[in-house]
Amino acid sequence: MEHLENNDKYAGLLVNKGIAKPPIVNPNLAASKKKRRIFTVDDYVEGILKGNRTVLSQAVTLVESAKPEHYAMAQEVIDKCLPFAGKSVRIGITGVPGSGKSTFIEALGMHVVQQQKKLAVLAIDPSSQRTKGSILGDKTRMEDLSVHENAFIRPSPSAGSLGGVARKTRETIILCEAAGFDTIFVETVGVGQSEIAVHSMVDFFLLLQITGAGDELQGIKRGIMEMADGIVINKADGVNIDKAEIAKTQYKTALSLFPMHESGWKPQVLTCSAFYKLNIDAAWNMLLEYVAFTQDTNFFEIKRRQQATYWMYESINQELKTNFYMHPQIKSLLKEMEAKVIAGEISSFIAARHLLDSYKNQ
Amino acid sequence: MEHLENNDKYAGLLVNKGIAKPPIVNPNLAASKKKRRIFTVDDYVEGILKGNRTVLSQAVTLVESAKPEHYAMAQEVIDKCLPFAGKSVRIGITGVPGSGKSTFIEALGMHVVQQQKKLAVLAIDPSSQRTKGSILGDKTRMEDLSVHENAFIRPSPSAGSLGGVARKTRETIILCEAAGFDTIFVETVGVGQSEIAVHSMVDFFLLLQITGAGDELQGIKRGIMEMADGIVINKADGVNIDKAEIAKTQYKTALSLFPMHESGWKPQVLTCSAFYKLNIDAAWNMLLEYVAFTQDTNFFEIKRRQQATYWMYESINQELKTNFYMHPQIKSLLKEMEAKVIAGEISSFIAARHLLDSYKNQ
Repeated sequence: MEHLENNDKYAGLLVNKGIAKPPIVNPNLAASKKKRRIFTVDDYVEGILKGNRTVLSQAVTLVESAKPEHYAMAQEVIDKCLPFAGKSVRIGITGVPGSGKSTFIEALGMHVVQQQKKLAVLAIDPSSQRTKGSILGDKTRMEDLSVHENAFIRPSPSAGSLGGVARKTRETIILCEAAGFDTIFVETVGVGQSEIAVHSMVDFFLLLQITGAGDELQGIKRGIMEMADGIVINKADGVNIDKAEIAKTQYKTALSLFPMHESGWKPQVLTCSAFYKLNIDAAWNMLLEYVAFTQDTNFFEIKRRQQATYWMYESINQELKTNFYMHPQIKSLLKEMEAKVIAGEISSFIAARHLLDSYKNQ
Repeated sequence: MEHLENNDKYAGLLVNKGIAKPPIVNPNLAASKKKRRIFTVDDYVEGILKGNRTVLSQAVTLVESAKPEHYAMAQEVIDKCLPFAGKSVRIGITGVPGSGKSTFIEALGMHVVQQQKKLAVLAIDPSSQRTKGSILGDKTRMEDLSVHENAFIRPSPSAGSLGGVARKTRETIILCEAAGFDTIFVETVGVGQSEIAVHSMVDFFLLLQITGAGDELQGIKRGIMEMADGIVINKADGVNIDKAEIAKTQYKTALSLFPMHESGWKPQVLTCSAFYKLNIDAAWNMLLEYVAFTQDTNFFEIKRRQQATYWMYESINQELKTNFYMHPQIKSLLKEMEAKVIAGEISSFIAARHLLDSYKNQ
């Protein structure tokens, strides 16, 4: 329910601001204004393809839902949107807390939408399951972008495993693309695992850094740096400018030590100030240059297909689990077995075996 | 086959050194000495319970095997060993490359076996799938321990996902315990993910550190530090002694910032020199103190049961995948679907759906 309420609030916000048109997909239901509309698969698809943001938002909520009946419906909606998806540039943006990601996304995002592009900003933050919050939950941090008619901002799903959350984000990309968004940002929190998931669903992986951060903050950068197609050093303003230039040189040296990217692309390092909107255009031009370069060599398409293979396996693995854990008889047996394991009555091995045998015999 | 060959070599080594008795479990097969013995489940169990190291070693190879017929047999062996397992102290040892893990394990291990304890040293190193090597592969690094009659050293399985490798290590713990080993070391490489898996299968999690390592080396320590029940600063000898004492104070301060452990145990920080065998007894005493403390509060048992719940889920998730990917029809269909995805003919979503539908209809 949390998802739905959260989402309704956001959809409401957009309608109130006069940005999104109210959904007109099913006039029969328009009378019962107070109640949540019950959309059919075709309602969802039609609304999405028309670029209706409220319908898109509700379709994403459907994708994020943990209910089995929502799950099946979401898959149908995705299948029908697929032929209209894929025509965007997908950009992953990561950086440790404190690197100014929200401000950077706001600045780069505004630059993008001002060029008549349609931008969707999504997020992966598996840690949000603990705080029940989300890195993008605080919309006030993207004041201009969140109310711009060409932007669609969606917080990270607030529950589930990384695999589950990542899969939902990838499905949300499909829906956004079908709704006409040609630029997708996927934000991540910069603490390790989720970067790998994001890297597997974007065309360009941008790492945001700052100078003078403590070792603890920069410690994670090594593995992630290897994945970066570009590094942007933020907060390069005032007394920080010289330090940022030094850092730029250091990052360039560090990058040159990694093996050549499969694409032949040489990752670039830039400085910028998201707060003062300095050099934001350079960051965007770097992205455009990358897209042109990889489309030229066809690597853009090759990478997408490699990613698709990865996601085929991820989808299978997720669904094998979903089928098992959502099975009504397994659900109750699982509770029983878990209680016995906790009580020390049976081993984890025996409990798992018993559950799997029951599942097989269904 | 690699596993088998690797293991045969090791089993042979032990027999040559006169440490392990040749297996006597099935006299009918003893004639065909040159050929690999074919053990029944009962042969394995009997050999393990007798503490026969060669049989134990071959049972571990069975557990590590990727062949479906080995898999089922391994599960039977584990089930039969389970009633005799659990009576050991399981210690996870991690530290970045360069922290002297092998030397430390050799020193602490020798200290342990000299007290008439039986020690099994296992390892989790998912990265070894790339190099096809193993952190413990180079036995010469544990010269004394590897030939000691009370020690059993087993390299990390050299293939599979982290989940798969971790599960196999956990199953190996069961076999070692059933074979009478009362102290288990599980070594890990100190680069992140595998630490979580190890933390979920040991009673005590020991973090090995050194002073004066570059930031890159220490960068990973934060998340792992939070899991540590004890930190040992190695290489505290010669000119390093003062630095090690300063580091000890710093680590103590850092640890005090983390929330209290669930057990009520306050993680300790020690210095030692594994090379010069200084203060090794203090490290062992810390472990004994922890065991006494947590057995007193019953946390020792509570933690094991929590871990068992975790592993029940892990076992289920692994087996769901195993059943799917090992299914003969799925195997061939998977190849076909993957080729189509790579060729850009179908989406990952459709391919996954098609495979899952075929699986359901088997």
